[in-house]
Amino acid sequence: MENFDRLAIHTMTTKPWDLPTAVEKYSRAGVRGVGLWRQWLEGRSLTESCALLDDHGIKAVSLVRSGFFPGLTPEERQTALDDNRRALDEAAAVGAPQVVLVCGAKPELSLAENRCQITEGIAACIDHASSVGVKLSIEPLHPMYADCRSAVNTIGQCNDMIDQLGDAWVGIAADVYHIWWDPHLEQEIRRAGKRIIGFHVCDWLTPTQDFLNDRGLMGEGCIDIRGIRAMVEQAGFSSSIEVEIFSNRHWARDQDEFLSDIITAYKSQT
Amino acid sequence: MENFDRLAIHTMTTKPWDLPTAVEKYSRAGVRGVGLWRQWLEGRSLTESCALLDDHGIKAVSLVRSGFFPGLTPEERQTALDDNRRALDEAAAVGAPQVVLVCGAKPELSLAENRCQITEGIAACIDHASSVGVKLSIEPLHPMYADCRSAVNTIGQCNDMIDQLGDAWVGIAADVYHIWWDPHLEQEIRRAGKRIIGFHVCDWLTPTQDFLNDRGLMGEGCIDIRGIRAMVEQAGFSSSIEVEIFSNRHWARDQDEFLSDIITAYKSQT
Repeated sequence: MENFDRLAIHTMTTKPWDLPTAVEKYSRAGVRGVGLWRQWLEGRSLTESCALLDDHGIKAVSLVRSGFFPGLTPEERQTALDDNRRALDEAAAVGAPQVVLVCGAKPELSLAENRCQITEGIAACIDHASSVGVKLSIEPLHPMYADCRSAVNTIGQCNDMIDQLGDAWVGIAADVYHIWWDPHLEQEIRRAGKRIIGFHVCDWLTPTQDFLNDRGLMGEGCIDIRGIRAMVEQAGFSSSIEVEIFSNRHWARDQDEFLSDIITAYKSQT
Repeated sequence: MENFDRLAIHTMTTKPWDLPTAVEKYSRAGVRGVGLWRQWLEGRSLTESCALLDDHGIKAVSLVRSGFFPGLTPEERQTALDDNRRALDEAAAVGAPQVVLVCGAKPELSLAENRCQITEGIAACIDHASSVGVKLSIEPLHPMYADCRSAVNTIGQCNDMIDQLGDAWVGIAADVYHIWWDPHLEQEIRRAGKRIIGFHVCDWLTPTQDFLNDRGLMGEGCIDIRGIRAMVEQAGFSSSIEVEIFSNRHWARDQDEFLSDIITAYKSQT
């Protein structure tokens, strides 16, 4: 109970709900934070979305997501940069302090080339991040996504990148789903320290049926969520615990019951 | 062409073929090595299986597989040890110089506990390995298998374990499918050096449709197989290139055509 105020929920977690429904339901349940996916901003002005959050006492703790820096042509890479700068503007408009970066990968390019284009892409967005006052939050993705979603796959890699990029406007979003297996997790979280500006929770199911949309609610799977939370808090993290669950199974349920289960699991499992 | 004599094929790769069929087909195609899965030894004596290989001029380069050390009870762990010793005996009987270890994992146990039980399990088999003259070859598995197939997920972890276990009867089977994404791959392969006693090839498909049985033929996916082969050879590896492909798609094809494609891909892509 004592940390219930730190709970935030990603709009994607309750995918069947549009933004007006989600903020009303979250607010009524006492949830004060939202991980705002950009699709949920469509169909109204940013000012209207911002007012919708404010009216319900909900704070956007992150805007999700941009990134996808690698491209096969200079035009494709430029389009990605433009979109990342737009995401930073959107985050600023809705009061979100960070944009979560899913860094991207093209299977046609080598890993080294993908990683190089990612670092260059982030570097090219830092001035804009600074000018709008929003941080770029690198989310390392599970290695099973290294072919086409992100060639950044460990906290250690994020640390190496931030050593190059500088700490001022670049941080790390640590999602237990992507990092739980890592033999160097503890030491790299310690090394990251205050670079960790986002902490996402869900669980890993055995067996997992789908590469994308079969995540578990906290406690349904094998991830030591409390252990990893202790590591990031030991390193200095004290912000929101963001519940980010992609699950065909949970999306098919009554979302009010799912929300209630999320809150119970948040209290007992994180 | 020049390295065609280094090609070995896992019996699981041509799953529809039983052992007599596989060795006849491989032999006729000029393939001289086989990665022998233990299921293919069933139904005849080890002496008969060994004769079958000899008669076709085929050498077992590895016996696949044992491991699965973690258990929820002492009895379960003992059963695993017994099975691993039996695998070593089988390997000795068919002339295979190594047993490939899929180390195992129980989602009910912590990662640390799984890893501890694995190291203890391997340690408990070393005397038997020495007495029959067969090496234990640790195969790190992709992190997407860390919940229930193997809590050993990187070459770096294998190196740390072998630092503890000693080099004499323990080595590493490096399968490109499991390790290609690793940011520390090159340095850990260099560190492994002659510890690498197996090299397995296939490819990573985009998108991958199935967690287990949707591997690609070399060249169908995004793995830099030649780059990784160069790394292991630089480190001192000069033995067989083992083709290990689990693929519902390829298993559904005419296996003679698939074998011909394997040989073509081996020549042009590895």
